Amino acid sequence: MKKLGFIFLLLCTFNIQAQKVERVEPPSWWVGMEHNQIELMVYGENISQHTPSIKNKNIAIKQIKKTQNKNYLFVTIDVSKAQAGTFKIDFKKKGKRNNFSVDYELKERKKDSKNRIGFNSSDVIYLITPDRFANADTSNDSVEGLNEQGIDRKHDYARHGGDIKGITNHVDYIQNMGFTAVWPTPVLTNDMKESSYHGYAMTDFYQVDPRFGSLEDYKELSSELKKSNMKLVMDQVANHIGLEHWWMKDLPTNDWVNFQEEHLAGKFVNTNHRRTTNQDSYASKSDKKLMNEGWFVSSMPDLNQNNPLLATYLIQNSIWWIETLDLGGIRQDTYPYPDKHFMSNWAGEIMKEYPNFSIVGEEWSYNPLLVGYWQDGANNKDGYKSNLKSSMDFPMERAIIEAVNEEEKWDTGLVKMYEGLANDFHYTNPKDILIFVDNHDKSRIFTETKEDIAKTKMAVSYMLMLPRIPQLYYGTEILMEDTAKPGDHGLIRSDFPGGWKNDKVNAFTGKGLSKDQKGMQDFLKTILNYRKTSEAIHSGKTVHFAPDFATYTLFRIKGDEIVTFILNKNEEEYELDLNRFEEIGLKGKKVKNILTNKTFTWKEKLKVKANGVTILTTKL
Amino acid sequence: MKKLGFIFLLLCTFNIQAQKVERVEPPSWWVGMEHNQIELMVYGENISQHTPSIKNKNIAIKQIKKTQNKNYLFVTIDVSKAQAGTFKIDFKKKGKRNNFSVDYELKERKKDSKNRIGFNSSDVIYLITPDRFANADTSNDSVEGLNEQGIDRKHDYARHGGDIKGITNHVDYIQNMGFTAVWPTPVLTNDMKESSYHGYAMTDFYQVDPRFGSLEDYKELSSELKKSNMKLVMDQVANHIGLEHWWMKDLPTNDWVNFQEEHLAGKFVNTNHRRTTNQDSYASKSDKKLMNEGWFVSSMPDLNQNNPLLATYLIQNSIWWIETLDLGGIRQDTYPYPDKHFMSNWAGEIMKEYPNFSIVGEEWSYNPLLVGYWQDGANNKDGYKSNLKSSMDFPMERAIIEAVNEEEKWDTGLVKMYEGLANDFHYTNPKDILIFVDNHDKSRIFTETKEDIAKTKMAVSYMLMLPRIPQLYYGTEILMEDTAKPGDHGLIRSDFPGGWKNDKVNAFTGKGLSKDQKGMQDFLKTILNYRKTSEAIHSGKTVHFAPDFATYTLFRIKGDEIVTFILNKNEEEYELDLNRFEEIGLKGKKVKNILTNKTFTWKEKLKVKANGVTILTTKL
Repeated sequence: MKKLGFIFLLLCTFNIQAQKVERVEPPSWWVGMEHNQIELMVYGENISQHTPSIKNKNIAIKQIKKTQNKNYLFVTIDVSKAQAGTFKIDFKKKGKRNNFSVDYELKERKKDSKNRIGFNSSDVIYLITPDRFANADTSNDSVEGLNEQGIDRKHDYARHGGDIKGITNHVDYIQNMGFTAVWPTPVLTNDMKESSYHGYAMTDFYQVDPRFGSLEDYKELSSELKKSNMKLVMDQVANHIGLEHWWMKDLPTNDWVNFQEEHLAGKFVNTNHRRTTNQDSYASKSDKKLMNEGWFVSSMPDLNQNNPLLATYLIQNSIWWIETLDLGGIRQDTYPYPDKHFMSNWAGEIMKEYPNFSIVGEEWSYNPLLVGYWQDGANNKDGYKSNLKSSMDFPMERAIIEAVNEEEKWDTGLVKMYEGLANDFHYTNPKDILIFVDNHDKSRIFTETKEDIAKTKMAVSYMLMLPRIPQLYYGTEILMEDTAKPGDHGLIRSDFPGGWKNDKVNAFTGKGLSKDQKGMQDFLKTILNYRKTSEAIHSGKTVHFAPDFATYTLFRIKGDEIVTFILNKNEEEYELDLNRFEEIGLKGKKVKNILTNKTFTWKEKLKVKANGVTILTTKL
Repeated sequence: MKKLGFIFLLLCTFNIQAQKVERVEPPSWWVGMEHNQIELMVYGENISQHTPSIKNKNIAIKQIKKTQNKNYLFVTIDVSKAQAGTFKIDFKKKGKRNNFSVDYELKERKKDSKNRIGFNSSDVIYLITPDRFANADTSNDSVEGLNEQGIDRKHDYARHGGDIKGITNHVDYIQNMGFTAVWPTPVLTNDMKESSYHGYAMTDFYQVDPRFGSLEDYKELSSELKKSNMKLVMDQVANHIGLEHWWMKDLPTNDWVNFQEEHLAGKFVNTNHRRTTNQDSYASKSDKKLMNEGWFVSSMPDLNQNNPLLATYLIQNSIWWIETLDLGGIRQDTYPYPDKHFMSNWAGEIMKEYPNFSIVGEEWSYNPLLVGYWQDGANNKDGYKSNLKSSMDFPMERAIIEAVNEEEKWDTGLVKMYEGLANDFHYTNPKDILIFVDNHDKSRIFTETKEDIAKTKMAVSYMLMLPRIPQLYYGTEILMEDTAKPGDHGLIRSDFPGGWKNDKVNAFTGKGLSKDQKGMQDFLKTILNYRKTSEAIHSGKTVHFAPDFATYTLFRIKGDEIVTFILNKNEEEYELDLNRFEEIGLKGKKVKNILTNKTFTWKEKLKVKANGVTILTTKL
């Protein structure tokens, strides 16, 4: 017990007798699930010398699997006929007296859990790095027994103390801004020696990092969001774990992590990061292997999802969190790195359990062919079916930034947006793709535009008009930047002002914000709140007109609602000839500028704001 | 008759009586064709007042169409039961005496004409600008009666006197170099007032420009090529004509060219060149219309292929040339500019007539989605079927140039080739796509590499190894450049040395070439002649390994033939660890370096040429 330290103390939804079982994972399950054959990972000293049995006639043990490590036992139970409640799993050892039992709980599901609706194009997701958003509970800033101690707000790669409660306390702010979903980067335990703040090096798949709070805190965040009609998106990682994961101290099998033998011999085998090997029909076998099995970094062992025990473990883990936290979506990290066939099964199993759920997979590629490849329904020549509803639009992110930054010429400037969006013809379902102009891994949009407010507004507002699921990074609404060292992860993830007691500036209340920051906040608030109920934006038809004279016009249309979005990069007001847009049918209609609230009739000409954004709607 | 000047004098495969008919097009046809319902465009003063009839019982008139212009008559004849030979079409006018007849010839087809094989990945195409390649017949340098007179070799945009015979005279050179197909840019009459040398502004679809020679010269080129086992590719233009086309003086219908009314009112309506409107599901109708119907330039009227008479005219014209010249392929200009549904019909009708033929369409786009869209068999979401076997690989052209020019870093340099080629997973049939590193419209590769011979060799040789149809531009083999004004069309299309009497340098014989030029010529000759019989390169499996330490290795494999292609951008020899390529199965095999002719056994290590290309084969 000592070996696992505090972890064990915190993990107790089942009873442990005589210290024979340290873990049973998943720690609980539900009745009435599609997944009713559950593989329990039972961990305890010499546990494989025991034979499990269950007396409950409605619950059968289907399979018992031993591995090369006698401290693990994988017990598959059939709960298809079970009632909710707690039952005992008895462990017996031949001819020995020290038999014991473990309690296991089967819960009732939340009502209509199966039909939960995942995030979609009616949503706008607020991405938060919890350590850097708000510190509501200073008592958990440092937790005894963990490898990394203390907080240091002056150090970009140290922990800063933000926590789950910090988000929960500001649900009102997020809702008022107009967001409808929240994606916090991972908050499960990262008991790493350093840089554990980011959360992507998990050392326990079933535990909330105590520095971020408790499982109850996480559940509370979810229920508070739900009360405000918002969805909680969980950031999960199937590709790798942190080197300090408890498995690494007592590996379940000989092949639990890739290049396990090399690791045990002290050798680090890095992935080649050549992600195109997933698609490339000419890629060599050795490059493919290295891509998918090499480790992301030396501190993150690469999981071998081809081990069926681990594959099932990961699928159950994801489902456990969806059901436990009442999730509205999953964001899956480093999508092209794990075995892609496993990822297809993983996503498929989740979608079987929750047919209306949403998962977005991260592939950082500027190639639309790859964005398209990963989306469910793609007609891939290699027959690959991803089961993944949503991929990430890095190509469009770059196109938007180039569009606002570049000088207007034949093939630069706004045409990048126009031609970037034209690629939608290739996608199975463009509106299920996630769009963003910045996130926790890349330079903030305000820095990308060289701190040009007009360009920043153009980029962000355009994204909000697209047939996409937009995602904004916390702080973009107040022009947070990483200009001192563009792209530096620690700097990108700076503290949100007002999240810490005694912060001089408080973006939640507006106190101390500059006029520009306030302007950006108001600008976004207006658009986000319009978007919230705009069916034209959520699911309307899209028509756009090729950029001309440094202007670009896009329409979203559904029924009577026509949204007109105009970018004008000229330094002066520009008079648009509205006859060009005749096919849209706006002539003679009353329209309102949602940014100025002015209403007028669509005629022959329209003067549009210099160096800025004009958004009109027929919904008065 | 005077109005049409010399054109009429040259056009006479049929008899014209009493000057009533100036043209019948197509001027002849064949028996035994799939296309046996032929629409004849009959042009003559008030011809529509006459009624045509045919006495031959095996030939029926199926349809007679009059247009808004009484000088045109479109007569569709059924020749499905006809014998080869000449028959008469009688033209009668009610109650008038001046009836007359026109002879029309139906020819025998060349043997096995239907099954002709178009260019494919076993070919390498030599692209020639005929005006700039070789002037074999100085008597046709200037032809009386034409708008543009004289030659001026000092002026990049004037005619220089090259001609078809100039190509024919050098078929041996082209064959010895190792090319297997020749694509001359258009040689049909361009009776334009200026810049008529390039050939893309046709003023007659059935006449060879007399400055390039005669129809007989063109036929002779074809037969000489055929004798040397080479294919002739014809460059055709369906999108537009030259402003001086005879149609423009007496337009056949009210809608023969797009924006005809505007043109007649003196207004020029330019295409918007927004080619993505062909694919973009969000493109506005007005942008689509302008793209496809606007004129390419003011001197090139845009044909309205939605006029069914014109559509049939264009299809018959293409087939006429295939049959007449015994073609081995067509290159179609500005593919995204005409109506794409017409282009699909056009290509489809040709492929129906010649199922093994090849057509390559030019779309200048760096977007693989567009390259893929145009290729026959693409599973386009909008249902578009192109019937086009081959599109052009501009994305890969750019990737190759970036790969050789850029510094080797994680995401620059050779990785551009590697990841560019990986996009092949998207294409229906990568090996039917045309690849090139330069052509008549873009800067020459030697200029693109800043006159770096090693880089030029890397770029060109890599292209020759790919599962593609490679195309080289004349002069690339002797390092021709446009460095003084990169990308300038006139300069790109400089004279080939030795093509003109008294040229001091003669690239055909090697006289006066620099050592570097000779070296490049030999380098290419060796590779091209190896490629000629290399089934591994024509149709073998492709395996490549991600670039590493500034080297990149690609294999082509078929049966016993394994071709190893290695690029080394290091300034020193580099020792490759051959264990990385174990899966290829070369260990212990004898291989020959085709550039040095040295033979050795594939073992553990291999030293590869500094800053250069290594090509090995198991075919000793």
